[in-house]
Amino acid sequence: MATQHLDPTDPTASEVTGNALAGYLRSQATEFLRALRLHRENGSAANGAAESVDAARALRRSARRISGSLHTFRPLLDTDWSEEMRPELAWLSGTLGLEHAYESRLERLLLALHRLSGSTSLPAQAVITDLAAGGRPASPTPTPERGNLTVGAAKAGALLERQLTLARTRAHSTALQALGSSRFHAVADKVAVLASEVPLTPTAPTTDLRPLAAAAEERLTDAIAALPLLTAGHPYNAEALVHGLSPDPSPHPQDGPWHQVRLLLRLHRYAREVLYAGSAPMDVRLLAAGQALNRHRDASEAAAAAAQAARTPRIAPATAYALGVLHADQRHEVEAARFAFQQAWQKETVNAP
Amino acid sequence: MATQHLDPTDPTASEVTGNALAGYLRSQATEFLRALRLHRENGSAANGAAESVDAARALRRSARRISGSLHTFRPLLDTDWSEEMRPELAWLSGTLGLEHAYESRLERLLLALHRLSGSTSLPAQAVITDLAAGGRPASPTPTPERGNLTVGAAKAGALLERQLTLARTRAHSTALQALGSSRFHAVADKVAVLASEVPLTPTAPTTDLRPLAAAAEERLTDAIAALPLLTAGHPYNAEALVHGLSPDPSPHPQDGPWHQVRLLLRLHRYAREVLYAGSAPMDVRLLAAGQALNRHRDASEAAAAAAQAARTPRIAPATAYALGVLHADQRHEVEAARFAFQQAWQKETVNAP
Repeated sequence: MATQHLDPTDPTASEVTGNALAGYLRSQATEFLRALRLHRENGSAANGAAESVDAARALRRSARRISGSLHTFRPLLDTDWSEEMRPELAWLSGTLGLEHAYESRLERLLLALHRLSGSTSLPAQAVITDLAAGGRPASPTPTPERGNLTVGAAKAGALLERQLTLARTRAHSTALQALGSSRFHAVADKVAVLASEVPLTPTAPTTDLRPLAAAAEERLTDAIAALPLLTAGHPYNAEALVHGLSPDPSPHPQDGPWHQVRLLLRLHRYAREVLYAGSAPMDVRLLAAGQALNRHRDASEAAAAAAQAARTPRIAPATAYALGVLHADQRHEVEAARFAFQQAWQKETVNAP
Repeated sequence: MATQHLDPTDPTASEVTGNALAGYLRSQATEFLRALRLHRENGSAANGAAESVDAARALRRSARRISGSLHTFRPLLDTDWSEEMRPELAWLSGTLGLEHAYESRLERLLLALHRLSGSTSLPAQAVITDLAAGGRPASPTPTPERGNLTVGAAKAGALLERQLTLARTRAHSTALQALGSSRFHAVADKVAVLASEVPLTPTAPTTDLRPLAAAAEERLTDAIAALPLLTAGHPYNAEALVHGLSPDPSPHPQDGPWHQVRLLLRLHRYAREVLYAGSAPMDVRLLAAGQALNRHRDASEAAAAAAQAARTPRIAPATAYALGVLHADQRHEVEAARFAFQQAWQKETVNAP
């Protein structure tokens, strides 16, 4: 299952050492600082909203890569520094990601409500994009209007919009507070140091990175081997909606292993970036598998949001009914994403060396 | 697409004439009379319920076959007699079939509610049978209890049980009334005559049946060619739930062509029985395709029943939510059945000559 280029026993592969890791971390730290500067410049500007969103995304992107590399190549880095750094980077990217997550969750749910209503009030392009992406709206899709919905669907849409917009607004405030906090300034200072000076262990500069990268890939393939891929590859297995009406408040422990694989896939991808020094050949299989797992996560969280909204006191039965349909629809999206992952993963690996 | 044995140009096939049709109609009429006698004998017996159900099923079975053959081989039969007979047979099998339909619809919906609740209170066998048959319970599955359901699922189950049991009781009374009516006696008398004397046209006894049987098959293959099989063959296409929240009171005109194919497939199957004089070789493809279309019809009607129940005034939001999940689940069953049909139909025809 191991891809050729990460095979440490591959005699054709040239050795990649800790120096490459240092180079990667420096460049990601530089990206982080650039994104931070952009964010500060645009945060107060009148038309800086889009740039500010892009900058926040870039911040998260480099924070995830630094954090992931610290994890995968742990033995090559100063332990104290590394163990202090990682949770702070995780806190940062988690805090900065929430606003966007609520926004895209609302978009996904409103698009689904429109699809379920057979509504023609959406621009055709948005619906087609939605279908092509398997229900996942290409951002930045404008939030659709609530025309042509049934009373139930319209009320469900309004309820979700209210709840998720509130959550998004709170996440926005939290992110702003985080960016102004001393905790954040401490992280930023550390990243600034990292941009020039990577705390490698004394032997790291000449240590081969490939065994550690291969171990990261092995953790991924082991986790994938433990997934119920046989079931997932059988269309319409109706697994994702089992427990859909369970009294258990977190009824979908079945999603956990898939979320875990999503994280391991990301770590594997970052390890490849380190090894290829930013010029990793595109791996279509990894890309498709990663997209399927993102869709899985998004649909899982959207389904939970619909179920959560249905527990709002004093809603009309028609609203609750629409939320039930919506919940089931998103759980089927979860199942569809697992099928898509299975299909992507079973394809032969075709990698340029 | 035409199967070999119905190809009228096939020089290896032996000619089958109107006499074979007469033989088939006589034997079906005899079956009808036997079932009627059984039904009368068991209708008043204390433990005759199961036999009575079997007898009613056998009555419908032969009524459908007579009616279908009258349709397919219309030109070979006395027109006035045929046109009088068919609507009466359709009325009879429709009336007798309703009770069973409501019963199995309730079973299907309660099993689905249990599956969706991740309930373990059902006998394992029932659940396994349910999954193996793609959600369609093998009769006679006992009606599952409502243990281990959430409040919403339990209330939804109770509501469906109330509504469908009432409908079933009414259908039972209607069927009993029908069997005692002068209208029924007139049909039974005609079938009794048919058992000995088939009103063929003068030329029918020596007319080849195969062109008419081939025409029935052509109507089937034409109708199948018009189905959206490309979409159906693409798993998780999410088509069946489009309009799931539509304001339209009959939101699923998309099911119509599939229901029509189900009827045409049945006519084709009966025409094969006529040609093979009751010893038609088993056609696995036809069998699988027919089962998929039955499942499609059952799921479509179960989804409609869940949606209908959700319109009951003054139900709790939790009940409505559970009905929404259930409706969506059954619409996905509809989609799964279309996929199963597409898979069955695309298989090469393997027929013994």
